[in-house]
Amino acid sequence: MRASDQPSNLSILIRKIKSKPLDRELGFGRTATTESRLMNPDGSFNVQRQRLNIWDNTHYHLITMSWWWFFWLIFGSFILMNCLFSLIYNIIGIQHLNGIVAGGFLHNFAQAYFFSSQTLTTVGYGHVSPNGLLANVIASCESFLGLLTFALISGLLYGRFSRPQAKIVFSEKMLVAPYKNEQGLMFRMGNARRSELIETEVQILLAFNQRDENGLLGRNFYPLELEINKINFFSLSWTLVHPLNDKSPIYNFSLQDLLDARAEIMVLVKGTDETNQQQVHTRHSYMADDLVWNARFRPVIGRNAKGMPHLITRKIGEYEELRKDI
Amino acid sequence: MRASDQPSNLSILIRKIKSKPLDRELGFGRTATTESRLMNPDGSFNVQRQRLNIWDNTHYHLITMSWWWFFWLIFGSFILMNCLFSLIYNIIGIQHLNGIVAGGFLHNFAQAYFFSSQTLTTVGYGHVSPNGLLANVIASCESFLGLLTFALISGLLYGRFSRPQAKIVFSEKMLVAPYKNEQGLMFRMGNARRSELIETEVQILLAFNQRDENGLLGRNFYPLELEINKINFFSLSWTLVHPLNDKSPIYNFSLQDLLDARAEIMVLVKGTDETNQQQVHTRHSYMADDLVWNARFRPVIGRNAKGMPHLITRKIGEYEELRKDI
Amino acid sequence: MRASDQPSNLSILIRKIKSKPLDRELGFGRTATTESRLMNPDGSFNVQRQRLNIWDNTHYHLITMSWWWFFWLIFGSFILMNCLFSLIYNIIGIQHLNGIVAGGFLHNFAQAYFFSSQTLTTVGYGHVSPNGLLANVIASCESFLGLLTFALISGLLYGRFSRPQAKIVFSEKMLVAPYKNEQGLMFRMGNARRSELIETEVQILLAFNQRDENGLLGRNFYPLELEINKINFFSLSWTLVHPLNDKSPIYNFSLQDLLDARAEIMVLVKGTDETNQQQVHTRHSYMADDLVWNARFRPVIGRNAKGMPHLITRKIGEYEELRKDI
Amino acid sequence: MRASDQPSNLSILIRKIKSKPLDRELGFGRTATTESRLMNPDGSFNVQRQRLNIWDNTHYHLITMSWWWFFWLIFGSFILMNCLFSLIYNIIGIQHLNGIVAGGFLHNFAQAYFFSSQTLTTVGYGHVSPNGLLANVIASCESFLGLLTFALISGLLYGRFSRPQAKIVFSEKMLVAPYKNEQGLMFRMGNARRSELIETEVQILLAFNQRDENGLLGRNFYPLELEINKINFFSLSWTLVHPLNDKSPIYNFSLQDLLDARAEIMVLVKGTDETNQQQVHTRHSYMADDLVWNARFRPVIGRNAKGMPHLITRKIGEYEELRKDI
Repeated sequence: MRASDQPSNLSILIRKIKSKPLDRELGFGRTATTESRLMNPDGSFNVQRQRLNIWDNTHYHLITMSWWWFFWLIFGSFILMNCLFSLIYNIIGIQHLNGIVAGGFLHNFAQAYFFSSQTLTTVGYGHVSPNGLLANVIASCESFLGLLTFALISGLLYGRFSRPQAKIVFSEKMLVAPYKNEQGLMFRMGNARRSELIETEVQILLAFNQRDENGLLGRNFYPLELEINKINFFSLSWTLVHPLNDKSPIYNFSLQDLLDARAEIMVLVKGTDETNQQQVHTRHSYMADDLVWNARFRPVIGRNAKGMPHLITRKIGEYEELRKDI
Repeated sequence: MRASDQPSNLSILIRKIKSKPLDRELGFGRTATTESRLMNPDGSFNVQRQRLNIWDNTHYHLITMSWWWFFWLIFGSFILMNCLFSLIYNIIGIQHLNGIVAGGFLHNFAQAYFFSSQTLTTVGYGHVSPNGLLANVIASCESFLGLLTFALISGLLYGRFSRPQAKIVFSEKMLVAPYKNEQGLMFRMGNARRSELIETEVQILLAFNQRDENGLLGRNFYPLELEINKINFFSLSWTLVHPLNDKSPIYNFSLQDLLDARAEIMVLVKGTDETNQQQVHTRHSYMADDLVWNARFRPVIGRNAKGMPHLITRKIGEYEELRKDI
Repeated sequence: MRASDQPSNLSILIRKIKSKPLDRELGFGRTATTESRLMNPDGSFNVQRQRLNIWDNTHYHLITMSWWWFFWLIFGSFILMNCLFSLIYNIIGIQHLNGIVAGGFLHNFAQAYFFSSQTLTTVGYGHVSPNGLLANVIASCESFLGLLTFALISGLLYGRFSRPQAKIVFSEKMLVAPYKNEQGLMFRMGNARRSELIETEVQILLAFNQRDENGLLGRNFYPLELEINKINFFSLSWTLVHPLNDKSPIYNFSLQDLLDARAEIMVLVKGTDETNQQQVHTRHSYMADDLVWNARFRPVIGRNAKGMPHLITRKIGEYEELRKDI
Repeated sequence: MRASDQPSNLSILIRKIKSKPLDRELGFGRTATTESRLMNPDGSFNVQRQRLNIWDNTHYHLITMSWWWFFWLIFGSFILMNCLFSLIYNIIGIQHLNGIVAGGFLHNFAQAYFFSSQTLTTVGYGHVSPNGLLANVIASCESFLGLLTFALISGLLYGRFSRPQAKIVFSEKMLVAPYKNEQGLMFRMGNARRSELIETEVQILLAFNQRDENGLLGRNFYPLELEINKINFFSLSWTLVHPLNDKSPIYNFSLQDLLDARAEIMVLVKGTDETNQQQVHTRHSYMADDLVWNARFRPVIGRNAKGMPHLITRKIGEYEELRKDI
C-alpha cells in the first residue's frame, strides 16, 4: 500500500486542509477501504453483500441484466421446460399422446418435446393430443404453467422497460484548468438520450486517505462545492466546475499529493426523466489518475444542417492541453 | 441575422436592464443559438443529440409515437414476421406442413403464411400442422417468439397508457394589458383533461440577445416573476401575470426592442395529475411575434345547463384589443 | 339566490373578518359560483370541461369506472367484435370455413360467431378452420386483433389495480365542540384500508360569499388553521380541530351567518400509501348544513378480543349532542 | 398491568423528563394501548380495522401475500374454475363435446375437465370441441374468462414485482454503550439487497407510560434525536446512535425504569431504492426487553477474497458485553 508508506506526504495533507471532513458514517462501515476505489467508474459500489437466501436478488438481476442475457435466459428456460415435460410424457408412455407414431427414444423425445412446446405456448395444433388421465393432467398443468410463465415475462419486460435510467456520458478525464483568475477542477457530462433531464442536480464527494492525530491512516470524505450544481434542463452538455480557491479542501494540492492519498472523486447526479417523469440517479467516479493538469475541453456542441445545436456525444471527453506557462 | 445588424438597439438593451441574467449554463452549451428559437411551441427543445447506438431511443420512440403509427408499426411487424417464417417453411419444404396441398409458389407462400400467423398468435387451429424435425423446431421457436412479442406489446401498451401527461392548452398570444395601475404580461392556460392538476407551479424564463461589454452578441436568460406562480388546483383556467414594473428585466421595453432581441419566453409548468398521482411537466414557448400590446382575454368559463362552471377550451386564446388611449 | 338577498348579514361578515382572503385565483376562474357548492362530497369538483376530441378522456374513464362497468364493457366489446367478424365470414361465404355445415342465416351466423370467438381468444380448437385466401386473411387479422385487445386489457387491468387510492372515511357532520377553554370546529377521518397512510397532511379551505367594498357579491377563500395538520401515521382515526379563536376568520360567526354566506369547507388530505409507496390525495367537502353546534364525537376505537385497538369504521361519524349550557 | 401498580416509579419518570412529549394524536386514537406493544417487530402496527366491504383489501392481500400462497391460490382457482365448467358441460350433456366417448360420471367429469382446461388456457387442441349452441356459448365465455383471468394475473405479478421493498436487517438488540465520554443508545441496520438505498433517513420515536398531573396513566411519545439521521448511501451497514446526554428524554433512566414504563422504541426508515427509484419505508420496534446494557457491536464488514468490503448480513446483531467498570 503506497499511501501508508509515505507518512510525510500525508501529514502534509493534514496540515493543509482547513475544512472538516464529513462524518465518517457513509453507509460503507468503519473499515472503508484505503487501498482500492470505493466506486467503480460505472457508478456501482465496490462492495459485496451476503445474500440471506437464494431468491433475494432474483428480481434485481432479471431487471438489470443485459437484454441479450435476458433473452437467452428465458429462451433457455423454455427449452429446459420442454425437455422436462417431454421426459415426463415419455415416462407416462408415448402411447398416451394421440397422433404420435412411437419409435426410438430420440424420436419419441422429439415428438413429446414438440407437443410440450405446443402446450406451453398454448398454440395447441391438436394433431397431437393427450389421452388418458395422467397425460391429460400433466398437459393441463403445463398449459397453466405456460401462461403463468408468460405472464411473468410480460411483467419482467415491462419492469425492464420502465426502469428509470438516464444515459449520461461523462468525460473520461477530469481537468484542472484556468477558471476566473484561479484554477478549477472540471469535468463534462452529456445527455445521450432523446428525452430531457429536468431539474438536474449534481453533488461531488472527495474521498482520500489521511492520518489522524494518532497517526492512524483513515479514509475521509469531503464535499466539493460546485460553481453551479443545479440546472433547469440538462439538454445537451454540462461542464461542472469546482473552483480550486482557498475554500476548497484540496486548495494548493499537487497531482502527486492526490495520487499519494489515493484520492477518489465521486459524482452523484440526480434528475427527472421527462418521458416518464421518474427520478433518475447516475453516478461516476474519477481517481487521481484521471486528472489532467492544465487542459481545456474542446467544444462538443456543433450545428447540424438546419442550424440546430447538435451534441456530438462521442466528443464529450475531448480536451486540449494548454501551454505550461501558467 | 437581424439582431446583430442593429447594435444601437441592443446597446440600449444593456443599458436598460438592472437585474442580472441567470448564469449561462442552462444545459444548452455555450453556443446557444442567437438566431432560431430555443424551444418549439410544443415545448420540445430545438436541439439534436447524436445517438450512441441504434437501440438507444427505441423505447422512447415506441412510447411517444402517435397511436396510429404505433398500431401500424406492430401490425407491419406482424406481417413481416409472418412473411419471413413463411419463407423459412417454404425453404424447409411445404410438404413438412401437414394439411397443405402443395401448389405454385404463391399458393405455398400464402398457405405457409397463414400457418405462420396461426403459430405466432398461438391460435393453432391444427388443420395445418408441422411434421418432421426442422419444421417442428421452427414452429416451436415461432410460437415462443410470438408470445414474447405480445408480452412486449403488452408492456409497451401499458407504458403508453401510464405515461404521465397533462393536456394543457395555452393561449396562442401573450398579451400586454393594464394590470394594477401598471401593465402586465399575460397568458392563459386551460386544463383540457378530466382529471385535476394539483399543486401546479409555473416558472417563466426570458431569453434574448444582448451584447456584453466587449460588444459580443450572446443570448442571456432572465427569470420573469409571476404575481401568483403556484395554485392548489388547476381545475379550469388560469391567467398568469408578470407585472411589468421596475423589477421586471423588460420594464419599459417596446415591442420593437423585444423583436430586435429575438426575445423568447419559455413557460415551464409542473403539477401532479390526480388520477395517477404522477408529476407532469409541460412547456410552452412564446416568441416576440406572439405578443399583443394592449389587449385583454375574453372570459373562457361559462355556465352549463346545470349552472356548473364550464370551460370552453377552444376559447382559451380569445382576446379583445383595448382602446389605444392608455 | 338567498345570500344576495340579505346584504345586511353579509356586510356584517365583512366587518367581522380581520384576516385576508386568499387571492382569488384558485384555478376555477373568475366566475366561481356563488350559489352551488364548489366541491362535491366525494371530493370531485363541480365543474365541466369541454373535450378537445372524442378520445381525450378514454383512458381516464377506463381507469376510473367501476369494476362492474369495466367488466361489462369489455365483455360487451368481445360479443360485438365476434358479431362483426361473424358477419364478415358470412359475407365471404360460410363455405370458406371448413367443418361448418351450412344452414339458415341464424345457424350460419352462430357457427361463424363461435369460430370468431375461437380465433379472437386464440383457443383455436380447429374443428372449424378457414380455407381460401380471404377467410384466412380475415382470421389472421382477427387473431392479431384478439391478442392486441387482450394486451390492452392487461394494461388497463394493471392500471386500475395500481391506481393510487386511499379509502378515507369522513364523519358526515362537522361539529362545533368545546376545545381548550374555547370552541373548535372538528371533523373525524378513519383509514378503512389495511395499509397504513404515512406522512399524512391535511389542509382546510373555507369558501364563502362576501360583498366587497363596492357591494359586489363574490366568493372568497380562507385557509383554516388546524391544531395539528400532519401526522407520521394515519393508522386508525384522526380528529382534526380548527380552534375557533380570534385568529380564525370565522371567529364569533353563528350557524346562520355561515348558512347565509353559503359557507363550504373543503378538506384536502395528502399522504403516502405504504403498500405501494405512492402518494394519494383525497378530498371532502362540508357545507354549512353539515355543521352541528355543541356536540362531541363518540369513541370509535374499541378493543378486539386480543386487546388490540380496533377501528369500528362505520361509527366514524357518531356523535352526541352536549348540554346547551355552554 | 405492572406499570400501573408502581406509581412511585412512574411519578419519578414525570419528575425526570424535561422535554415535552409529542402531541398525542399519532393516528392511533386516544385509547392507545398502555399494555401491549404498538408496533410489531416486523414494523406492522398492532391494530385492526373493520372492513367496509368484502373486496376492500383483496388487492392488498394479493400483492402482499407470500409467493407460495399466491401460487397456490391461483393454481387452486384454476382447478376450481375447471371443475365448475366441467360440471356445466356435464349438465348441458357430454354428447355436446365432440370427441368424448361418454362413460360413467367420473369419466365424463374428467374428460370435460380437460376440455375446460384446454379452453381456459386457450391451448385448444381440438380433439375435443363443442357442438350445439349452448356448449359453444359456454366455451366462448370460458375462453374469454380465461384470457381475462390471465391478464389479471399478469397485472398482479407485475404489481408484486414492482412493489417497493427494502430488505433491511436490524440487530435484534439495542445496546447502551459508551459513546463520546457519555453513553449512547445504539442499534445497527444492514442492507441485505443488491441495490443501494440512497438518501436514507431514520427517525426514532419512544413510547412509554407516564402518569399525568391527575395521576392518570397514559402513553406518551417522544422523538429521540440521532447523532446522524441521514446518509447519502446506505450501502452495507449503519450503526445509529442516540446520545444519552441531558437533552435525551430518557437521560439517567435505568433499565428497570424503562421496563416499568413498558418503553417501546420505534424505528422509521425512509430511503430510495436505486433500481427502480421508488421510495421505500421500513419500520422496526424494540421493547425495553431488547435493551442490553454496556455492550458493543462486533464488526460486521469483512473483506472478501478480492479485498472488497463485504457485509456478513447474518452477523448484523452480534455484540459483545463490556466490562462492568464504567
